[in-house]
Amino acid sequence: MPSPADVLPELDDRQLDLLRRVGQEWTGAPHDSAGGGPSLPVDPRLGVLPTADLVTPEGFGRLVTIGESSGGPRSAAEGSEVPRGPGPTGRARRALLGPPLKSTALARESMRKLVALPVLSADALSSVAYGPEAMLAVLVLAGAAGLALSLPIAGAIAFLMLAVSLSYRQTVRAYPRGGGSYIVASDNLGRLSGLAAAAGLMTDYVLTVAVSIASGVAAITSALPGLGGATVPIGVGVIAVLLAGNMRGIRQAGALFAAPTYAFLLAMFALLAAGAADAYQRGFQSISAPATAHAAEGLGLLLVMRAFASGATAMTGIEAISNAVPAFKPVRWRNARVTLTVMATLLITLFAGVMFLTHMTGVVPNGRETVLSQLAHLTFGSGPAYLAVQAATAAVLLLAANTAYNDFPRVLYLLARDHYAPRLFLRLGDRLAFSNGIALLSVAARLVFVAFSGSTAALIPLYAVGVFLAFTLSQAGMVVHWWRLRDTHWHKSLVFNAIGCLLCALVLVTAAITKFAAGAWVALVIIALFLFVTTRIRRHYDEVARALRLHPDSAERPGHTLVTSHRAGSGALTAPSRGEQEETPAAIHHLAVVAIASLDLAGLRALAYAAALQQPMLALHISPSDEEAERFRRYWEVWGDHLPLRTLVSPYRVIAGPLVHYVEAIHREHPDLTVTVILPEIVTRRLRHRPLHSGIAGRLRRALRPLPKVVVTTVPFHID
Amino acid sequence: MPSPADVLPELDDRQLDLLRRVGQEWTGAPHDSAGGGPSLPVDPRLGVLPTADLVTPEGFGRLVTIGESSGGPRSAAEGSEVPRGPGPTGRARRALLGPPLKSTALARESMRKLVALPVLSADALSSVAYGPEAMLAVLVLAGAAGLALSLPIAGAIAFLMLAVSLSYRQTVRAYPRGGGSYIVASDNLGRLSGLAAAAGLMTDYVLTVAVSIASGVAAITSALPGLGGATVPIGVGVIAVLLAGNMRGIRQAGALFAAPTYAFLLAMFALLAAGAADAYQRGFQSISAPATAHAAEGLGLLLVMRAFASGATAMTGIEAISNAVPAFKPVRWRNARVTLTVMATLLITLFAGVMFLTHMTGVVPNGRETVLSQLAHLTFGSGPAYLAVQAATAAVLLLAANTAYNDFPRVLYLLARDHYAPRLFLRLGDRLAFSNGIALLSVAARLVFVAFSGSTAALIPLYAVGVFLAFTLSQAGMVVHWWRLRDTHWHKSLVFNAIGCLLCALVLVTAAITKFAAGAWVALVIIALFLFVTTRIRRHYDEVARALRLHPDSAERPGHTLVTSHRAGSGALTAPSRGEQEETPAAIHHLAVVAIASLDLAGLRALAYAAALQQPMLALHISPSDEEAERFRRYWEVWGDHLPLRTLVSPYRVIAGPLVHYVEAIHREHPDLTVTVILPEIVTRRLRHRPLHSGIAGRLRRALRPLPKVVVTTVPFHID
Repeated sequence: MPSPADVLPELDDRQLDLLRRVGQEWTGAPHDSAGGGPSLPVDPRLGVLPTADLVTPEGFGRLVTIGESSGGPRSAAEGSEVPRGPGPTGRARRALLGPPLKSTALARESMRKLVALPVLSADALSSVAYGPEAMLAVLVLAGAAGLALSLPIAGAIAFLMLAVSLSYRQTVRAYPRGGGSYIVASDNLGRLSGLAAAAGLMTDYVLTVAVSIASGVAAITSALPGLGGATVPIGVGVIAVLLAGNMRGIRQAGALFAAPTYAFLLAMFALLAAGAADAYQRGFQSISAPATAHAAEGLGLLLVMRAFASGATAMTGIEAISNAVPAFKPVRWRNARVTLTVMATLLITLFAGVMFLTHMTGVVPNGRETVLSQLAHLTFGSGPAYLAVQAATAAVLLLAANTAYNDFPRVLYLLARDHYAPRLFLRLGDRLAFSNGIALLSVAARLVFVAFSGSTAALIPLYAVGVFLAFTLSQAGMVVHWWRLRDTHWHKSLVFNAIGCLLCALVLVTAAITKFAAGAWVALVIIALFLFVTTRIRRHYDEVARALRLHPDSAERPGHTLVTSHRAGSGALTAPSRGEQEETPAAIHHLAVVAIASLDLAGLRALAYAAALQQPMLALHISPSDEEAERFRRYWEVWGDHLPLRTLVSPYRVIAGPLVHYVEAIHREHPDLTVTVILPEIVTRRLRHRPLHSGIAGRLRRALRPLPKVVVTTVPFHID
Repeated sequence: MPSPADVLPELDDRQLDLLRRVGQEWTGAPHDSAGGGPSLPVDPRLGVLPTADLVTPEGFGRLVTIGESSGGPRSAAEGSEVPRGPGPTGRARRALLGPPLKSTALARESMRKLVALPVLSADALSSVAYGPEAMLAVLVLAGAAGLALSLPIAGAIAFLMLAVSLSYRQTVRAYPRGGGSYIVASDNLGRLSGLAAAAGLMTDYVLTVAVSIASGVAAITSALPGLGGATVPIGVGVIAVLLAGNMRGIRQAGALFAAPTYAFLLAMFALLAAGAADAYQRGFQSISAPATAHAAEGLGLLLVMRAFASGATAMTGIEAISNAVPAFKPVRWRNARVTLTVMATLLITLFAGVMFLTHMTGVVPNGRETVLSQLAHLTFGSGPAYLAVQAATAAVLLLAANTAYNDFPRVLYLLARDHYAPRLFLRLGDRLAFSNGIALLSVAARLVFVAFSGSTAALIPLYAVGVFLAFTLSQAGMVVHWWRLRDTHWHKSLVFNAIGCLLCALVLVTAAITKFAAGAWVALVIIALFLFVTTRIRRHYDEVARALRLHPDSAERPGHTLVTSHRAGSGALTAPSRGEQEETPAAIHHLAVVAIASLDLAGLRALAYAAALQQPMLALHISPSDEEAERFRRYWEVWGDHLPLRTLVSPYRVIAGPLVHYVEAIHREHPDLTVTVILPEIVTRRLRHRPLHSGIAGRLRRALRPLPKVVVTTVPFHID
């Protein structure tokens, strides 16, 4: 659950004490309100504004077009206290996403088992639509000899499913607050393992979206071959719908999402029952594969292993329930366990059933029509029953893709909370969804989907590695967990988890070796990159936190910079930013530099602003030549020479360089000065007028930003 | 010639007087340096820094990576006074473009006639490479009957060339400082005609680049048919080379550019002579076109007119000399005239010769090989003589494309000077070239070239309209010029110009009608758009100038804003920006609002900065909930509550909206306050770390920019 403390960290006693000591330095500073600084011209009542009336969702929308409101004294005279509505962009956004939600709406609802089962198992159960097919697609390369092995391999996978679900039953008990692979691995195996699990999970989620949609579209195009050429556009469209839906926050609609899963279960059991009846009529005489299935490869161990690893993708999603224990009604872990058991039973039944039926009918993957569709055709013909099977399959696959839309941003949030991912993934959008994570998943899934032309067969080799890496680390973490805890039944749990871990590791190694060239290397490279990037991000955030931390030195420091640079030699943990330690008013000595191009109203306003600050100031003009500088000086004298003026000649017609040089020269002479560079800026109301102005203020701001002890102030001049 | 006054406008006596009166308001203001404001802590010597030693081109380069230099007090201690070298980007740029040039290097060299002729006539003479072919491509549609008309139509075009060059001879005399179509039309026919001429010219220049390169590449692929498929990549590559070369400022290399034109003349005269000799041997018996040239269209007036308009593209570039009179040695206009006469003679000779030769040999355009290449093949076989013709043709065409690179940015500069184009086209780059105009031309030419797949035949219909629009308006302007001036010989000049004008108008109308569907409509739409956009740009700049102008009111105003809003009702020309008239220090009443997220060093620095300004100030914290706000208040009290604090609750987790609301609320209560919003900003040294930070300071700055009387100050905190 996101908490506000993610943004404003809690301070412990030591830090509070530090804050107190730092504050003591401010006592007697020129501006202490207790010590009588300039009196505040603002009504204190303004502190409690905006009132409840003003705080409408629309009024606070991020996309309010501020320019439309005058806001100045005139609107007060007209008594216009009405909050602004959203602009045209804002309105389009509202229509698409709905009005923003208050943070307090973030109450998590609890799910009954009958709702939790379909919502949480869509990913796992829908894997039956591509897992068996992926396995057969490998075996068929070895012809009839290969296909003959389909039942034994399917048996091995079913055993794996059993072992892994037994293993996850232990996780559910141990982590009643949700035991995602990232958390379990981090807790028990250390940070790096946690990150590796997260890497596996996140590639898994991207591929879940891509594979589920590819497979869902295949279910549709099998039924409607006319759409065969449009796989990529359909898939991209589906991703766009998922993006919009999740931005809107469809996560809440659990009950609605129960339907596709139950429909799929119904359709599949009907198919299996009808298929079994047919097989019974034929006396369980299996139809051999068509003669076209000639052997392209020899039947070796590698091929068998490859088929096993491909078929194991039917297990993806099996971990979903262990992540979501808090979503159940109490007793949460017990209900979650029951649901997990039911799901595993259903999964194994469906998987075994589909494998049995393909064996009986001799159906093989053919690239035009999915195996499930072929089975349904053989069993139900082409009537409404067939179409219902296809529709239910497509629906449950889309639902499975949607599951990833819940999980991917959550893992990203956890990473961001632990400073392994950019802070922007902490932010909840208007609709309380992690909009940035949702957007990132959509972009990544779209890229993968398009790059592989929406082909399930091409995507499968990438899939297994990430999933089984996360599984393996998660179970290994559980083994360590039980070993450390040693509560009642720890022996049994440890054994279950150890078996699950070993089997998953076996699949992981198998997948990495046998599918390396076919695409697993991509997954491995991405996981390695992920580890590299996340640890670098963490390092940067640690540096930032160190730099921002109130440190003991700060409370004892005499408040003058020159001393610090002397002390820096002592090797103490001081001076986070060289020479920049002006954190008390007494340490700050102002100098304002107004960069002025011409004596028009915009320039005069900037000068007046600076002069009214009553701090030391000068005006700076940069000319292309001495003659021009002289001309400007003449105007300046006509104006009355009210302020000190410096002119610089820039024979290369650049402004930023000389300005930066000048400010640096000031700092060389007077390292104690904080230089405020004041820039007049012409602000146009319309975006299309922006290119007509030089944007020099923006360029100067960017040029000055890296300089220490330089503050940039822009004084706007509005053109209506 | 660009002048610095383009940037800093000259003030006339009235404006100087205004400036003086505005300045008088400042006398006695709190910060008048004469009246003893705070003493300046800066050594006045800094005013003349940077010294000549520091002003190296590299030190002032725009792409200096400022972040690499520490600049603070420490570097002074180490005595590092060495100017910085350019960063890696800067170095690549220098290698490509050469070191920057001082403005004083902008001395225009004068050209001897023997240099001016080839440089200025490359565009016109090279048109012979595509003009005749374009005409024949139309006539061949009517089969042998059409081709029979090629000589009469060619005669008409030759007469047109004669008339137009006689007409331009008058322009040279009347505009010794350069009489481009934009200047002549603006001067004599008014602004809109000038803009129309500029529109014609600029589409012409874009098409000159596209057509010349297309034709040049065709000359190459005719000789090397293996390159036939690579037309577009070759053309795009050539545009890139022209872009880089012109950014570097190759304009100066006049003498070097003489070679291709002379080589082309040599090659063409050799070809014509050899061809004439062949024809003589055959007793001037023309070979009829091959039987494949069957008639696809009937021979109607429309077709003849279309052929005429297409052939007339052979005249493009004929105006170049009249633009460039100041580039000649004195007596400039006389030398320019002589050169123009020579050029016209050569042009007519070449054009007539090529037409004669095609008639004699029966060569027709075939889409694979250019007409010139076919002629050269027939005359010289496939040996070195043939290759020399093709190489010279390609070279002169590339040179012609380069001519547009000189002229297009200059017209754009003139438009920008007159406030019809964005100000950025006024700016001279490091190398004293109008880099922005050069870049724009490259982008436009690349677009056109790629859109038309580098096909000369497809581009020609667009070409004629722009050229002849500019020609017509220019000649019409000259007619008005002579009518107004009535000096010696004005009768003769007027007649020549009037004939030129009429003939050009005839071609313009012919081209617009006959080629309308084939592409002329595109040119017309672009010209209309151009007129619309440029006049809108001018209107905007006029508005800006009005808003920025020191107006009499400003000098008499009592310096308080509330009065102005009262006066605004009187309908006088006041209040350029409602309620924002704080152009004297006395009119400004400060309030600083520090937006603070947490009490870390960055936040404390912003608070200290604001407090040290010694102006009224308060701190503002925006929380997601009341509890969080309470927590922040607790920390604030631990710190010592040294400054007034306001907390706002934003239940929608947005920051910009509440901040804007709050500032507007302040303005409603206190319209006289100038609110300075002070934002702490974390600045990372490396660009790749930027996405790791929220960038909230930038977003708030953009949200606050449209508000009147709100100044935004960013206090940086650097992370190294």
